[in-house]
Order: sequence, then structure tokens, then C-alpha cells
Amino acid sequence: MSADTWILTAQCPSRLGTVDVVTRFLKESRCYITEQQSFDDRHAERFFIRTEFFPQDPGFDAEAFQAAFAARAEEFEMDFELTAPDARMPVVIMVSKADHCLNDLLYRYRTGQLPIDIRAVVSNHPDLEALASWHGLAYYHFPITADTKAEQEARVWEVIEESGAELVILARYMQVLSSEMCEKLAGRAINIHHSLLPGFKGAKPYHQAYEKGVKLVGATAHYINDDLDEGPIISQGVEAVSHADYPEDLVAKGRDIECLTLARAVAYHVERRVFLHKRRTVVFSR
Amino acid sequence: MSADTWILTAQCPSRLGTVDVVTRFLKESRCYITEQQSFDDRHAERFFIRTEFFPQDPGFDAEAFQAAFAARAEEFEMDFELTAPDARMPVVIMVSKADHCLNDLLYRYRTGQLPIDIRAVVSNHPDLEALASWHGLAYYHFPITADTKAEQEARVWEVIEESGAELVILARYMQVLSSEMCEKLAGRAINIHHSLLPGFKGAKPYHQAYEKGVKLVGATAHYINDDLDEGPIISQGVEAVSHADYPEDLVAKGRDIECLTLARAVAYHVERRVFLHKRRTVVFSR
Amino acid sequence: MSADTWILTAQCPSRLGTVDVVTRFLKESRCYITEQQSFDDRHAERFFIRTEFFPQDPGFDAEAFQAAFAARAEEFEMDFELTAPDARMPVVIMVSKADHCLNDLLYRYRTGQLPIDIRAVVSNHPDLEALASWHGLAYYHFPITADTKAEQEARVWEVIEESGAELVILARYMQVLSSEMCEKLAGRAINIHHSLLPGFKGAKPYHQAYEKGVKLVGATAHYINDDLDEGPIISQGVEAVSHADYPEDLVAKGRDIECLTLARAVAYHVERRVFLHKRRTVVFSR
Amino acid sequence: MSADTWILTAQCPSRLGTVDVVTRFLKESRCYITEQQSFDDRHAERFFIRTEFFPQDPGFDAEAFQAAFAARAEEFEMDFELTAPDARMPVVIMVSKADHCLNDLLYRYRTGQLPIDIRAVVSNHPDLEALASWHGLAYYHFPITADTKAEQEARVWEVIEESGAELVILARYMQVLSSEMCEKLAGRAINIHHSLLPGFKGAKPYHQAYEKGVKLVGATAHYINDDLDEGPIISQGVEAVSHADYPEDLVAKGRDIECLTLARAVAYHVERRVFLHKRRTVVFSR
Repeated sequence: MSADTWILTAQCPSRLGTVDVVTRFLKESRCYITEQQSFDDRHAERFFIRTEFFPQDPGFDAEAFQAAFAARAEEFEMDFELTAPDARMPVVIMVSKADHCLNDLLYRYRTGQLPIDIRAVVSNHPDLEALASWHGLAYYHFPITADTKAEQEARVWEVIEESGAELVILARYMQVLSSEMCEKLAGRAINIHHSLLPGFKGAKPYHQAYEKGVKLVGATAHYINDDLDEGPIISQGVEAVSHADYPEDLVAKGRDIECLTLARAVAYHVERRVFLHKRRTVVFSR
Repeated sequence: MSADTWILTAQCPSRLGTVDVVTRFLKESRCYITEQQSFDDRHAERFFIRTEFFPQDPGFDAEAFQAAFAARAEEFEMDFELTAPDARMPVVIMVSKADHCLNDLLYRYRTGQLPIDIRAVVSNHPDLEALASWHGLAYYHFPITADTKAEQEARVWEVIEESGAELVILARYMQVLSSEMCEKLAGRAINIHHSLLPGFKGAKPYHQAYEKGVKLVGATAHYINDDLDEGPIISQGVEAVSHADYPEDLVAKGRDIECLTLARAVAYHVERRVFLHKRRTVVFSR
Repeated sequence: MSADTWILTAQCPSRLGTVDVVTRFLKESRCYITEQQSFDDRHAERFFIRTEFFPQDPGFDAEAFQAAFAARAEEFEMDFELTAPDARMPVVIMVSKADHCLNDLLYRYRTGQLPIDIRAVVSNHPDLEALASWHGLAYYHFPITADTKAEQEARVWEVIEESGAELVILARYMQVLSSEMCEKLAGRAINIHHSLLPGFKGAKPYHQAYEKGVKLVGATAHYINDDLDEGPIISQGVEAVSHADYPEDLVAKGRDIECLTLARAVAYHVERRVFLHKRRTVVFSR
Repeated sequence: MSADTWILTAQCPSRLGTVDVVTRFLKESRCYITEQQSFDDRHAERFFIRTEFFPQDPGFDAEAFQAAFAARAEEFEMDFELTAPDARMPVVIMVSKADHCLNDLLYRYRTGQLPIDIRAVVSNHPDLEALASWHGLAYYHFPITADTKAEQEARVWEVIEESGAELVILARYMQVLSSEMCEKLAGRAINIHHSLLPGFKGAKPYHQAYEKGVKLVGATAHYINDDLDEGPIISQGVEAVSHADYPEDLVAKGRDIECLTLARAVAYHVERRVFLHKRRTVVFSR
């Protein structure tokens, strides 16, 4: 993707002409398409498209573009989004004590590999403050108990709201969010679960995996929803294991695949490769 | 593995000297060890060892070897098995209508890649007879209904018994075996299930996978036991899929990984790389 | 892909409006797009597009469609191809003695997984005739020596020509084709080489790999050209190996990945997912 | 591996009794073997063994153990090494400007995943000092030019010598070491090369890979020797790529697999899983 590449994404009900309404407009707007993928889900009867393009002429006016396209999109009940070349998505990361996913995300953030703008790191433990601080990031330590859950979530929500975060990354945050919180974050919070969902939901998945004697362990990045570990899946990864791996070895072996699977899901999300529709995702991966 | 390589495998309770009782005997018997792996499971408190060797001197007497070793093994409550270089395990394959796993096994059998001696192919459908016949194999068509299950299993069992089969391969046999049959085949029947167990147990796993929107599908080869799709796992494989794969596409995409996963499990079994202990396996893979 | 899905593929020099010229025409022709991918190569300055669609109205006239589109395509110097839903590409397979790739292709052909119409199997050895015959295929045994190469190739060419083959698959054909033959088959002959090209070109790649002590072996499917083992790559696969794998073990271990890599390349080719431009391919994989 | 596990590794010429001389001694020393692997290379006529064990009795005397074993090992011309449970190998890391491998190694070091004791980070550029410093590590910036190469290497060598480093990790150090330096570091310097060797040796391998249009890129960790990018291979990894990946995309995509491949090789080395013999390695991986 070049430095001057815009992204246009859209989805709408299936209907003749869904591709044409997008591509004809781009042509008429003298926008040059470099990469495009579309998919029409015949079960869901829903259309999805993602286009990378750059304007042929100087002085591209994004607002005018959107206003003009909105008129055409409306006819197709099309939801669309235009993303600028230099966009960096505002993000809040939530963690507990395990630091591998946070460390990995911070590295990709610091080196510009992941076009995100981390506004804050929030945790129910104080342990990872030094790591956040070295990267110049605000760290909020909000302890949580059964009694203070509602209150703690209110404080977390305040940080998310005030920071302007468009995405929340649960980078091994080991608390179950309330239904209210899940609802507020629908479609904009990505969790990493350390198993190949739907296998080994819930607590201590590696210990469950050991008991079953599986030969592969995995990780799943998904949007959260109100049904624990059942949210729409974005990406999954696996790692071979053996009889010689005790539960603590599985925990250790799984770290890399957790990092990679979460980072890939976040990259797909911020590059607008993921489309959410009901309980499933469409992912135009590379 | 050279053409003259014998295999000695053993397991017993954990105890000081378990390796030494094997390796000292081999040395004293002038047997040259080419490859050896051992593992002591500290949770199960059980020891497993696999040794490839060839006799230094001509005229190796397998019976005398076994008799002499038995005396030492007894002290360690050690179960052991000696496998000859030219051993080809007698096998019965069970199928229904899907032919991909059968086709794959027959190819490996025909070309000598898999050291098995297929004594019969048994099916509840007539469809795959031509395939078996072309490979010169006896094909038994035993239809099954809810009413005739016991009777059909009796006929299947007769074939297994009379053929001298040491291993039964369920190569997409789409019937649930009775508890009695499972018990009789304990530790010597390998099934391929078309999902990454314990995810998607039971019927139509690819359709279940589609509903969940997973990004990886897989296959699991396992010893059967009385608990459906819960037997000890031998090998697992995965394949990446996407939103564009409808259930019928998952079925098609899964075939290759089913073939490979089952063939690998069978190879491990006949090469004596798999040790069964309670609900788990130890697999000394390559 | 549904049973009524047509495929339209095209490539042309990069220019504003390349997507629009295709998609607008499809819309105007009342063709419903189910899946589309396009890529504009900024180094090669070349555009590639692949569209799956089905006509909304009964009585779709493919010839009229092509004639009408040709007028518009011409303006863009666009090469295009329309592929019918029930198309099965006529194919000739060339082999020597190794049968694993042939066996794999014949299975996929026999079960309809690969939409090809095998017109003949040609070999410089008699060994694989029985396998071809069981599948009801004509088998031509054309021996070759240094002296008879030109003559043998003439006979091979005759079979290809007379059979109407649009694709030649070199499924472990162990002869180097002449420059003339390569030229005649440019862009329509796929070879499988048993290494990760450009590593280990030429003879006995697994033996070369053993000497180097690599930890991964692989296979490469590519269009042939006049430069041995340097043709445009379509697909590649790998398999982990270890110090315990002697050359003959690598040969055995590599078979599966050769079969899978070749089958994938052929599937991509017949599904019109591969675009050839100079020495590189664009592959719109799934 | 438990906290009290010792490792005994050895290699010697092939001969009857090589396993027995090790295992009998361990039994007599009342050492309990938890995991063992041995391999006898019939081409090289060389034997390799790795044993994990813990002493049954308190007060294990490592020096006495080694002295007693040396007497027996001598008869077999056996080189052996005993590694203590709490061993952390002293290491010097060399880098240039790219920080991904360094960042990855430092994370594994900081969290104790990699049992190494980093004594210094040496670079020909000043860029990565902050990263090293945050981890409390000494950073030596030794610039290099064609004229000062000998002098610079002398300073590097001084750091290695004085730090007591047993292993040097070239974590994307972009200078070719002199023959003298290679010789001094033989068997104790691991380099990561960003291609699947022997493909794409030398400079800018991702650009070479782009030119060839490969569908997989990879990384190779190997011991350095005097022949550039030809040293004995320890581990290799791959990543799928496509036509849409320009050289700069390959560079970005390859980072993760470089980190993982190097980290795995270092882990294998410090866990004494790697045996070097001539131009090949034996790796008893998990």
C-alpha cells in the first residue's frame, strides 16, 4: 500500500449493481483503483467490498467525495467508510499481568508497523506500568473485585470515551466484561483467547488442552460480544505440541501464536479488511 | 530406517533404571542402536521408550531375545514389544461412501509407503467395491439399519477376527460403533474425525464450523473408545479457510488434511511410535 | 462457486477506468457479481481482474456477451476470457516412472474435484499404463534417448495437438523439454519441481537438500519456459524435515507436498485464478 | 523441563555400546532420566545423545560426576558436556539498525523465557542504544568502514572475550565477518539470514525473492562459518506471500518469521539440543 492510498469499504444487502455503484463513482471521481476485493454472501444475502485507490488529481476533497457518494449509496442501503492514507486509529489497550501481547503490540506501534495511536493502557493490575511508560503511554491502574466491578468498568469506560478510542484491544485482559460493557463496545473491541475456539472456552484453556492430549494448540482473535468466547472470529493460529509439553509448557509455547494472531487481527481491523455482519466476519486478507 | 532395523518399544511405571534395563540388554545382546527416544511422564508416573536397532551378528534369534529380555522386564512391570524389520501389520479398513481416505491409504499400501497388509475392506455401502477390487482386496458389504446393528457388527467382527487384523482403520466410516465393539477394539482402531477435537464433535462438523465462522478447519486421528469423538488423540492437522468457503467448500477443502492426518496416524501406529496410556498418547514422531 | 457461475478474467496496461470498464458492462448486461478481485501492479504497470458472476436473466448468450465486451475492451488493450460454469479444461498429463502426482491428479479428476478433462497420459516409460487404464484413459508410451529426442517430442506434440489439450501437466516428467517445445507450450504447461525454487535447481534436489542439511524441504509448481526450473511460479509448499531424514527419507516425505502443490496450481489455473505477465504470476487465490 | 533437571550431551564415533556407556553410568550414579534422544548418523558414522535427568539423592557433585564419566567416555573418544539446571548462557548480541530481532530476544531474556545472560550489545550503529539501555544492558557502538574493519573486529572481539560470552548472536548484523573472526567464533555464533538458504544468499534477499515471484519467503538461522551464508543450518521458517507484496512488503512480512526462527535456534542452542558435526547439525527438537 502506497503512502497516498485511500481505502473505501462498504456493505449492503445483495442486489444487482452493488459493485458498479462503487466503481463507477470512483471512475467518475478520477480515482485510480490499485486493489479491490468484493464478496456477495449468498446465505446472508449481503454484499461486501473493499477498494484501495488514489486520486488522479491533486486536491482531493474527502468531504465532498463522501457527500456525493452518500447520495448513491443510500439507494442501495449501503454503509460505507472512507479511510485516509495517513489514518492512525485511536486505541486503548487493556491488560492484566501477562505482558507478551502488550509487548508485541507496543513494538509494532513504536516502529510504525501498526498504524494505531495508543491513547492509554488500562489494567486491573499495576505490573505493566513500566513497559507502558517506556513507550510514553498513560497507564491506568483500576483494581477490580466482585464488589467494585460496575464502578471499575465505569472508570474504564471514561478512559475509552475521553481518549476518543475507536478500538479497544483486550491483550490478555483476564476479566469478563459485563453485558453493558460488551454492548457499548460491540464491533470495536478485539479479544485474544488462548485456544482454537470453540474448543476450550473459558478459564485455563491450556490446562484443558493438556487434559485432552491435543497435538495442536491455538489462539483466536475475535470481536467481543455478550456471549463469552463466542464473538465473531477474525483470525486464528496454531502451534504443534507433544506429549512432552506439560500445561506450563503449553502456556509458554502458546505465547508467540497469541501475539501473532492478535496482531494480525488488529492489523486487519485498522486496514479495514474486516466486515462484521451478525455473528460472522468477512475478512479480505492479503 | 534401514531394511534391517528392528524396533523395541516398552512402557512401565516410573522408576530408576528404566532406560538402563533396556539399553544394557541391547548392548549385551550386541544390538546396535540407531535411534532412541524415551520419555518419563511425571504426571502419569509412567515411562515410555522406543529403540531402533540392528543386530551386529548374523543369526539374530528374536524368540530367544524376547525370552531373555522378559526376565529383566518383569522386574520393572514392563510391557514390551519387538517388531521385525519386514513386519507388515495386518489391517482391516472400514468405510462408508466417502472414498478420499480409502483412496489415499490404498495408494500408500500399493506403493509400499505404509507397511500394512490390508486383509479386507468392510463397508455399510456397496459404493467403494470397485476401488478395493482394483487393488485386489476383498470387499465386504454389510448394510446396517437401527434394527440390524448388533447383527452387522457381529459380521464385521467376524471379518476382523478371521483376517487376523491387528489394526482397524475407520476411514470415514459413518456409523457409531457399539460400546461392546469399542471395547473389543480398544487401542487397535484408529478413527479420523473431520474437526479439531474437542471442537465440533458429532455430526456434520464442517457445517458447525461454518456456523461459527472459524478461520481454520482441521482433522483429528484418534483411537476409538466408548466416548464418541473423545478417544486418545494421535495426530491433528489444520487448513486455513475464509468467509468465502460455504459448508460444501469446507467439506472439499478438508479432504486433503483428513487424508494426511489419518495416514500419519496409521504410519505412527505401525512404526510403533504411539504409546497409549489411559486417555492420552505418547507419540515419538519424527 | 455455484453451478451457474461464469468467470470473466482480464488483463491490460494500467489506466484509469480499468475496473469500471468491466463492472459497468456486467451491470448493464444484468450479470450479478458474486466475487471479484483486482490488482494493479505498479511496477509492471499492468492491471488484472477476475470476476465470478451469474446472469440475472435466463438465456444468457455468451457469444453476444463477448462480442459486445470486445468493443469496450479494445479501447483498453484488454485481453479477456469468459469461462462457462460447466467448463472442463482439456488436459494432457506427462509422466515418467514416479506415480504419486499422477495418482493424486487422477483421483481429483475421477471425483470431479478438479474440473479437467484428461485426454491422454503420455510417458517415456511403460510403468504407469495400468493406473491410467483403470481410469479409462489413453496411455502413450514414447521412449526417449538422446538420439530420438526430437522425434519423441514430435510424437508428444501430435498427441497434445490432436487431443485438443489446452493444458499440459508435467507430473514428475523427468525429461528436459527442448526450447521449441517450451515455446510451443508457453503459458499452458505446468511443471512440479521437488524443491523450493530457486533453491536446488536441476537433478536430485532432495540429495542436494540433504547435503546442505536444510530443515525444510519443499515443492514448486511453475509454468515452464526455456530456462530450466526458472519458469513463473504458481504455488509453493513446504514440509519440515530433520537430521534423521536421509535422502531417501526426503524423497518419501516430499511426495505429499509435491502432490498438493501441483494440484493447487492446476486448480488455480483451470479456475482462471492465475495471470501470467512476463516472468511473474498474479494469483487470486482463495 | 523441571527446575532441577540436568542435561548431559555427548557425541562420538559410531560404535556398539555408545548408548549404554551413557545410560549405565547414569543408572549407577542414581540419576533419573526424564527424557532422552539419541541418533546414530550412518553416513557420518557419528553418534549423538542428549539426556535430561535429575539426581535421586541430595548433594549431587557435578565435578565428581564429570571426572568419573570422563574415564568411560575416553574409551569411546566421546566429547560430552554437563549442563546445570540453573545455567544461563553468557551471550553477546550484535546488531546494526534493524531492531526486530533484538527486541524479540530482549523480551524473551527479560521474562526469563530464554535462559541467557546478555553481557553486551555491540553495534556498528548508535541507533539501538536506547532499547538496550532500557533493559539495563551495556551497548558498544563500534562504527566500521572498509579501512577500519580489522580494528573494529578487534574491539568487538575484546568485548566478547572480556564478557565471557559463550555465544554470539548476530541479530541482523549487516556486516560480513572476516575469516579470522569466523574461525574464532566457529560453533558459537548464530546468524539469522532473511531467506530460505541456500536460496537468495547475500544482499537484499527479499528483493531477490520479489524478482523471482516466489510464493513463500523464509528465514534461516545458522552457525556462521567462513563461507558466507553457507554455515550449518539450525532452524528455518516460512511465510506465505503473494503478487501483491512489493519488496518493502516482503521486508515487513518477513520480520516475524525472522524473530521466531532466530529465537528458536538460540533456545535449541542453549538447551543443548544442537550438535554440530562438520557442515551439518543434529537438532533434538521438541
